[in-house]
Amino acid sequence: MATELYDLTVPVFLRGFKAMAAFLDKARAWADEQGIPHEELLAARLAEDMAPLTAQIQRVSDSAKLAVARIGRIEAPAMADTETSFDELQARIAATIAFLKAVPREAIDGREDADVEVKTPSRSFHFKGLPYVTGFVLPNFYFHMTAAYAILRHKGAPVGKMDYLGGI
Amino acid sequence: MATELYDLTVPVFLRGFKAMAAFLDKARAWADEQGIPHEELLAARLAEDMAPLTAQIQRVSDSAKLAVARIGRIEAPAMADTETSFDELQARIAATIAFLKAVPREAIDGREDADVEVKTPSRSFHFKGLPYVTGFVLPNFYFHMTAAYAILRHKGAPVGKMDYLGGI
Repeated sequence: MATELYDLTVPVFLRGFKAMAAFLDKARAWADEQGIPHEELLAARLAEDMAPLTAQIQRVSDSAKLAVARIGRIEAPAMADTETSFDELQARIAATIAFLKAVPREAIDGREDADVEVKTPSRSFHFKGLPYVTGFVLPNFYFHMTAAYAILRHKGAPVGKMDYLGGI
Repeated sequence: MATELYDLTVPVFLRGFKAMAAFLDKARAWADEQGIPHEELLAARLAEDMAPLTAQIQRVSDSAKLAVARIGRIEAPAMADTETSFDELQARIAATIAFLKAVPREAIDGREDADVEVKTPSRSFHFKGLPYVTGFVLPNFYFHMTAAYAILRHKGAPVGKMDYLGGI
């Protein structure tokens, strides 16, 4: 009955990206109706030193693709963080989804105790596979997804909690 | 190697509450230094029709306690949502932690396929145990935790991503 690691990662991410793609589309349509320039919405942030909408989407993408790459010892596609439009953000999401869908279950399952290293410019973090997923990957994934949603709500876009959750 | 359901719920929530208790303390100390009334911070929200800080903490508490109650067929302690101070929010978090710590692993493990019903005023949602956790409980838990953190950041509190993640 216990759960394999693949089921805690790839399908969870795919579900999130589907919801995100849909709420970004909704926000874009609303911006067009209201005559709000896309650049204004894409550059919006919740605090001066927090990342704008564009970067929140980039970080959700990174959270997911780097998670499976690190766990599964797979190379993740490089993405240059150059998105400046809704179309480009949707393309980023689509590319991340395509990569995730190609990850074989065998690369992820059984890696609960595998060593995972997360290198940042200032230091390295060392995890085992499962605590990496439950204590780092998922909190980060939902952090940036919620931040993207919250930026849209803060700017007045007509998105709601069900858009964040996706179909339940 | 696969993961038991308990390990995807109780310890994950405990970790989140520990981080939340710490970043709320940090925000409170900052408010005192700056002479910002606690009521102002506790009532802050990211959009007029989004919940304020107080309610975000209440909803994180609900996400966790109702999850284990529904999965484990345990009664969760009633909490009246009457918190109006940092002390009361910390007490709410402490009470939620105490409840979670008392949940026996046997009540949660093996319930991946169990029927779970979530009743809202307008409708009921029916889940199986595992998709309830991965597609509803965790996205909600991190949504409200991120919203609480983002409200503090929006108001200028000196909290950072590591405070959200807790020790890693």
